[in-house]
Amino acid sequence: MKTKEEYIESMRRMHFELYMFGEQVTNIIDNPIIRPTMNCMAATYEIAEEDKFPEYQNIITATSHLTGKKINRFCHIHQSIEDLVSKSKMGRLLGVYTGSCFQRCVGMDALNALSIVTYDIDQKYGTKYNKRFLEYLKYVQDEDLVCCGAMTDAKGDRSLRPAEQADPDQYLHVVEEKPDGIIVRGAKLHQTGAVNSHEIICMPTRTMREEDKGYAISFALPADTAGIIYVYGRQSCDTRKIDSPSMDVGNVLYGGQECMVIFDNVFVPRERVFMYKEWDFTSDLVESFASYHRQSYACKSGIGNVLIGACQLIAEYQGTSKAAHIRDKIIDMIQLNETMMCCSLSCAYEGHKEPSGTYCVNTLLANVSKLNVTRFPYELGRFAQEIAGGIILTMPSEKDLKEPRIGKYVAKYLKGIQGVPVENRIRIVRLIENLTTGLGAACYLAESMHGAGSPMAQKIMIGRQTNIDEMKNAAKRLSGIEAAS
Amino acid sequence: MKTKEEYIESMRRMHFELYMFGEQVTNIIDNPIIRPTMNCMAATYEIAEEDKFPEYQNIITATSHLTGKKINRFCHIHQSIEDLVSKSKMGRLLGVYTGSCFQRCVGMDALNALSIVTYDIDQKYGTKYNKRFLEYLKYVQDEDLVCCGAMTDAKGDRSLRPAEQADPDQYLHVVEEKPDGIIVRGAKLHQTGAVNSHEIICMPTRTMREEDKGYAISFALPADTAGIIYVYGRQSCDTRKIDSPSMDVGNVLYGGQECMVIFDNVFVPRERVFMYKEWDFTSDLVESFASYHRQSYACKSGIGNVLIGACQLIAEYQGTSKAAHIRDKIIDMIQLNETMMCCSLSCAYEGHKEPSGTYCVNTLLANVSKLNVTRFPYELGRFAQEIAGGIILTMPSEKDLKEPRIGKYVAKYLKGIQGVPVENRIRIVRLIENLTTGLGAACYLAESMHGAGSPMAQKIMIGRQTNIDEMKNAAKRLSGIEAAS
Amino acid sequence: MKTKEEYIESMRRMHFELYMFGEQVTNIIDNPIIRPTMNCMAATYEIAEEDKFPEYQNIITATSHLTGKKINRFCHIHQSIEDLVSKSKMGRLLGVYTGSCFQRCVGMDALNALSIVTYDIDQKYGTKYNKRFLEYLKYVQDEDLVCCGAMTDAKGDRSLRPAEQADPDQYLHVVEEKPDGIIVRGAKLHQTGAVNSHEIICMPTRTMREEDKGYAISFALPADTAGIIYVYGRQSCDTRKIDSPSMDVGNVLYGGQECMVIFDNVFVPRERVFMYKEWDFTSDLVESFASYHRQSYACKSGIGNVLIGACQLIAEYQGTSKAAHIRDKIIDMIQLNETMMCCSLSCAYEGHKEPSGTYCVNTLLANVSKLNVTRFPYELGRFAQEIAGGIILTMPSEKDLKEPRIGKYVAKYLKGIQGVPVENRIRIVRLIENLTTGLGAACYLAESMHGAGSPMAQKIMIGRQTNIDEMKNAAKRLSGIEAAS
Amino acid sequence: MKTKEEYIESMRRMHFELYMFGEQVTNIIDNPIIRPTMNCMAATYEIAEEDKFPEYQNIITATSHLTGKKINRFCHIHQSIEDLVSKSKMGRLLGVYTGSCFQRCVGMDALNALSIVTYDIDQKYGTKYNKRFLEYLKYVQDEDLVCCGAMTDAKGDRSLRPAEQADPDQYLHVVEEKPDGIIVRGAKLHQTGAVNSHEIICMPTRTMREEDKGYAISFALPADTAGIIYVYGRQSCDTRKIDSPSMDVGNVLYGGQECMVIFDNVFVPRERVFMYKEWDFTSDLVESFASYHRQSYACKSGIGNVLIGACQLIAEYQGTSKAAHIRDKIIDMIQLNETMMCCSLSCAYEGHKEPSGTYCVNTLLANVSKLNVTRFPYELGRFAQEIAGGIILTMPSEKDLKEPRIGKYVAKYLKGIQGVPVENRIRIVRLIENLTTGLGAACYLAESMHGAGSPMAQKIMIGRQTNIDEMKNAAKRLSGIEAAS
Repeated sequence: MKTKEEYIESMRRMHFELYMFGEQVTNIIDNPIIRPTMNCMAATYEIAEEDKFPEYQNIITATSHLTGKKINRFCHIHQSIEDLVSKSKMGRLLGVYTGSCFQRCVGMDALNALSIVTYDIDQKYGTKYNKRFLEYLKYVQDEDLVCCGAMTDAKGDRSLRPAEQADPDQYLHVVEEKPDGIIVRGAKLHQTGAVNSHEIICMPTRTMREEDKGYAISFALPADTAGIIYVYGRQSCDTRKIDSPSMDVGNVLYGGQECMVIFDNVFVPRERVFMYKEWDFTSDLVESFASYHRQSYACKSGIGNVLIGACQLIAEYQGTSKAAHIRDKIIDMIQLNETMMCCSLSCAYEGHKEPSGTYCVNTLLANVSKLNVTRFPYELGRFAQEIAGGIILTMPSEKDLKEPRIGKYVAKYLKGIQGVPVENRIRIVRLIENLTTGLGAACYLAESMHGAGSPMAQKIMIGRQTNIDEMKNAAKRLSGIEAAS
Repeated sequence: MKTKEEYIESMRRMHFELYMFGEQVTNIIDNPIIRPTMNCMAATYEIAEEDKFPEYQNIITATSHLTGKKINRFCHIHQSIEDLVSKSKMGRLLGVYTGSCFQRCVGMDALNALSIVTYDIDQKYGTKYNKRFLEYLKYVQDEDLVCCGAMTDAKGDRSLRPAEQADPDQYLHVVEEKPDGIIVRGAKLHQTGAVNSHEIICMPTRTMREEDKGYAISFALPADTAGIIYVYGRQSCDTRKIDSPSMDVGNVLYGGQECMVIFDNVFVPRERVFMYKEWDFTSDLVESFASYHRQSYACKSGIGNVLIGACQLIAEYQGTSKAAHIRDKIIDMIQLNETMMCCSLSCAYEGHKEPSGTYCVNTLLANVSKLNVTRFPYELGRFAQEIAGGIILTMPSEKDLKEPRIGKYVAKYLKGIQGVPVENRIRIVRLIENLTTGLGAACYLAESMHGAGSPMAQKIMIGRQTNIDEMKNAAKRLSGIEAAS
Repeated sequence: MKTKEEYIESMRRMHFELYMFGEQVTNIIDNPIIRPTMNCMAATYEIAEEDKFPEYQNIITATSHLTGKKINRFCHIHQSIEDLVSKSKMGRLLGVYTGSCFQRCVGMDALNALSIVTYDIDQKYGTKYNKRFLEYLKYVQDEDLVCCGAMTDAKGDRSLRPAEQADPDQYLHVVEEKPDGIIVRGAKLHQTGAVNSHEIICMPTRTMREEDKGYAISFALPADTAGIIYVYGRQSCDTRKIDSPSMDVGNVLYGGQECMVIFDNVFVPRERVFMYKEWDFTSDLVESFASYHRQSYACKSGIGNVLIGACQLIAEYQGTSKAAHIRDKIIDMIQLNETMMCCSLSCAYEGHKEPSGTYCVNTLLANVSKLNVTRFPYELGRFAQEIAGGIILTMPSEKDLKEPRIGKYVAKYLKGIQGVPVENRIRIVRLIENLTTGLGAACYLAESMHGAGSPMAQKIMIGRQTNIDEMKNAAKRLSGIEAAS
Repeated sequence: MKTKEEYIESMRRMHFELYMFGEQVTNIIDNPIIRPTMNCMAATYEIAEEDKFPEYQNIITATSHLTGKKINRFCHIHQSIEDLVSKSKMGRLLGVYTGSCFQRCVGMDALNALSIVTYDIDQKYGTKYNKRFLEYLKYVQDEDLVCCGAMTDAKGDRSLRPAEQADPDQYLHVVEEKPDGIIVRGAKLHQTGAVNSHEIICMPTRTMREEDKGYAISFALPADTAGIIYVYGRQSCDTRKIDSPSMDVGNVLYGGQECMVIFDNVFVPRERVFMYKEWDFTSDLVESFASYHRQSYACKSGIGNVLIGACQLIAEYQGTSKAAHIRDKIIDMIQLNETMMCCSLSCAYEGHKEPSGTYCVNTLLANVSKLNVTRFPYELGRFAQEIAGGIILTMPSEKDLKEPRIGKYVAKYLKGIQGVPVENRIRIVRLIENLTTGLGAACYLAESMHGAGSPMAQKIMIGRQTNIDEMKNAAKRLSGIEAAS
């Protein structure tokens, strides 16, 4: 397995075509906007280093079912219920550690979903996708690679299906078949951690019908393959990382990353194609990936821990921590945060084995889990802004604190209680700002809403996964209606 | 193990001193108010009958760690995580089966809590409580008995502690020590299933201080011991069971039961005393029992299934089931219902082994679980009343439906869609009424609020069980404050 | 104007065909189930008696625009903004006074809606409905009558329109035209205060299309006209009024009433017909009535006052009123309650004059007002059950309190704080039970949900009444898009 | 009255000592961060220009009760209920027009509060504050000035009162008395629109006791008086105004502003002192100002209009506007938004005349109004982020759209439906980002939470303003307890 440093060095060797704020970025590693996001990805390597964090080995590493070697869990195919549970706990652990989106779960979820669906396609059609996939997986595990799992297409007019769009490229599709592969065109939006990745794995974004079969594709490529263009997304307060490299950013260590990924007639060799034209398996692949990925939002309970800790601190720094209503709100935050975690754990504990041998989460509960995640962090955020006070929207900059003439006034009037450095209060206010309206809010709020599918996607799945007839029969029996009627 | 019929026969042999509506009830078995509650308790025996429900044996039965015999899980001391999980699932299963409070979990939770705390007291003080308790437990298991777990005292002025009350009997206490036992006086309120029980097990209702040590008692007695007086509590729509024995009741099979239990100078033999004066263990006993019992509210997810089924049916019967907002509300109900279940499951899966050998749930998550239960059923109830429509508050009685002159009009104008008997619609409306404002609402709403402790009790425990320092340190590190500061 | 006593005597002279619990009721006045509801209606007369309540004259009386005489506001056509505002305040006042649905607003709202729409029909079609209506109105005002406003039809299969139903009577319609009138058949459900009324005024329940024009009818009749059959609806805990005439009922003075009203080929004389076949005005009539009636739910803020008062009392009686969380919940209840009232007031203050001269509320805000009412009382109810404690579902009956042997125990263990009679605590617990799950909950919860239309009806109107284009233009301008695009 | 241009020119003549990002700002007018906030303030002048907006004259202008001249309502003392209502409507109007905090209401609210309290102090103590104040007011009205109302002190340790602080300057106080005035020291935090103001009016931030009387001061000064130092607060995405002057900002026209204002031994001439040492009137001044200012949050319903309009547009642009759940969410947003407005209107309509002749809002309802504002915009914001979709957190910058190589891809894959320029979609996404997590969120969310006092301040006032005894008596009467007991 790679160390944190080896991962960063490996990224230095990648050659992305990347644009940000209208300019091409050639040195990704040292870019001040990108670097904290790379450090965040690197944390998934660091925390697996046995000498640094021996206590987390059970959670963060696993044993490859292909090679028997110890691997990073992010490259692992779940072999047991314990694996699924460890995955939820790993998410929370890294959420606490980074206070941010660490960007690596989406690739893990894509690998696991493909391990199931490639097998199932082969069973039906006699194809060889699973074998290809397992060879690819072995490579990923041996090299300890980051895979970007790419699902969401541009979609154009959302009231139309892929084949109905005015512009056929609104969903990623095959534009040409070659003897040794295919050429694809389109774009994947909202790609988390894209330019912190070694590989990119594409999947369809929705259930396809027969007429959409050219869109029914899944494949993997090195992330810096020629023809793939990355455009870095803007996020709230992103440039504070340049302006004010320390306090004002809030989370001074880590951050997340989102890119638009454009496939401009990109060649995919046959051995990296894991689905093509099997439109009747798109639904399985989408649902399988989505279920795994909805489980992954256990990370938000980890970020919740950070936010709750920050709220407790700011209350202490301001002299309000003993007020009954503050304590009550802190507990309300814990309640919401632990409820989310319970759902992620339960969908793992109630998982099952697929025909391929891979363990999969309980689909109903994974959707229930994520649907809560689309709501609760917003409530936590509101509580946090209430506890922090008006200073969250009016505090002068770090540079003002250090300005010779006025710095002393800024320090004096932001002081809070005696015995705590004013800088502590400032830093915690900035962290709460980060998580509730700044860069961290991109991860903690908007991503909680839309990552792994927007709320309606979960609602549709919940409706579909529930055995409503059993419930109807229970009601009939108890009310005196014959259940058979 | 007893069959359902054997249980009912065993109750016929009990001699309770019971009052209801100002009159003494001598034949409990055949009283129309009580009988459905006894049938509900009997369901915990019926569903364990292997020939009737072979599919539930894993859930509803267990192997005694004392005797190795198969026993009803309600008499079992949890020996593993699987036991804890099965308990949560048993609760939901019986909630679905009865649509009501089946009243037997409180005794199970009392037994498990005592198995831990009697052991711990003995370790500290060299007492013999645990041995006594295990002998008692063996008797309960061998006879397959129902134990009423009795905790809540009258409490008088709640701003005062037990020893401060104007009337010393506001908390159950020892009024005299005898060579072979103790004499107790006081009352336990809100006793679920009291006169459907063989035994009653008393515990302190709160943490005691040294000055309250006469109140630090736990013991078991046959429920019909002389000097114990039962007063049956009124509940919404209780007399419909007399007036109109069928449809209007809503749940035509089952119901719950709550009694005030008065101890009028009752003698407890020494071998049935499991705590006396060890005030420093009252907190452990209360918290241990409360944690188990908060887990037990998985049953409300079972009742939730019934309510959701009823809502789906009424929508179908009224021609509204395809409306987008109805489907959306049904899914919102499922979401809340499954979220509750996830929490109950998680506190079980994340349980641990106590020094006594008993497995106990995760205390934090058990409290989180119950706190959701104090809220979500009310939301489900509101959704149900919305879906059912105004008929929920205006529907004529069953007798009107059968009245010669007007019955045909009532039937005609309550018809709903073609192809469904009008009686079905009526029955489902009554079931929803039962669960949201009638007898069932006592179980499903008010009991969800206060059973196993009111919401503030859970909030206090959540605050206490959370490692807020770890959260603070995470926030300090990410904001750039040294964690040690 | 009639006194309370004169009203009751006037009801004694009515000859309803009424059924309840499968039996015909001939003496309505002295029926223990009905009497409290009649007393509640009588409160609308009592509170207008100048010698008894001089302070309420401005609110409860008005000056007839037809005769210049002082009349009860429930018979008044609103002549100013002040009238509209006084109506909202009258609703709250009577809500506080009765803690119940006083049943008289629906007739007032029907009269006002008809005063507008009969005028508008005449303007378009040259009919004489308005003149007829004003003559009828003069009679109602002079005699100080209660009118039952009847709108909701049986509806059958709700996915079908009136003319599409298998049974044509699922919506009230004309079955025969006579030289001097029409004969109607059908039923009106959920008729509040029906057998406490002198008159019944029917209106269509929905927008009709041309093919439904036989259903586009509005008319008034004496409520005891031959052929009108009333079936009394069951409500939670209704028979406690018989069983236990005092404490256990909770609200010992008042209650509400709901009937199914069947029109079995009833003749309506031409001079009492206010709409027939003008299907293009059904929408106006429904919306106009609904807007007025949605305003009327200010009464629930009055009931809210009672519930909040009860919660404060029970907290004091139990020694918890100083706990921070209790005070916080009381304030949350006030917040919800006053928010509802603000909306009812605003739709009145922002009212306008119709061509007929009648003042009408702001339609958008009236719908906003009612939509909050479908939600907030449920939250108040949940808070109340939390504050009251578990006793709400377990308390013995009044008869137990008075039973010679056990009464002293019941009194002792329900005592609460020193210095307050135990009976007070019992009475307040029963009042909270009444309002949250008993008879009062029918008025306070389910009626809040469905009265004046279920929530979706309000949502549809809110969508229709909002000028979304103005909002879009504001967004376009601020974002830099030309507003005209 | 000044025109928009005259206002801006008048600001050019001010000489503030202002710091931002660690540097002194000398040209405020042309600073790209500040200018949109000044334009926003200028909108309060522009919309009063009769030739530009004749339709708003009734709302935005009033007649001075001192001079009889037409004045901007922001300088007016309310002389009637109509004035109070117009104030609420003016707030919403400008909220729609600017989509931002226009910063001028706080001075208006300070003037009105002082008009009441200076009069009341004089009545008790025979002082001349009111006369001084009215002379000052005349000057403000004649010159059409912006007053910054300054209340919130630094507060230090919030568990301590002013006189108990380790640093006595944590609350603004008098440090020296001079023959012709006083010298003050301290700071006011969270000062909205500070460097867009001509004048600054200070008031105490809380109720003072006798020992705090040196803190019981109110006065007015020219905002650029020597010794007053301004430090500009950072807000989310503030520097986008520099980086990318157009689309990425979201609201391309306007923004808000918050400053820390330091009083470094500033001299206040006697004729500008409106309170000094009358600690027993601090409570009145705080509550009076707070009530007015809580009413002022009607502006958030105006911003709500903008956000709802933006959500409708983005749904149309993306092809989702016809989905039932989207329409439902839009209506939920309207419901919350109008409910807030109803409360602001009601506290105005239910206002009253003070002894000074000034009309004041209903205090209870003003607090109810603001408490809703601390919650509902957060819900609207969450709905908006849900409707907008994941693009809210991943969209490339405007510069990427215009970059020669990749601009065409960005445009292609952000297109949405046919027939709408891609730029429109981008602009609306940015506007939603602005209002929910960017610069606008500072105004719309955090300011809604804390402006005019944090939620607990409102809750305390609500508890204090409610006549709970009346409610208790109503409950006693209905439950059968004598009201006198």
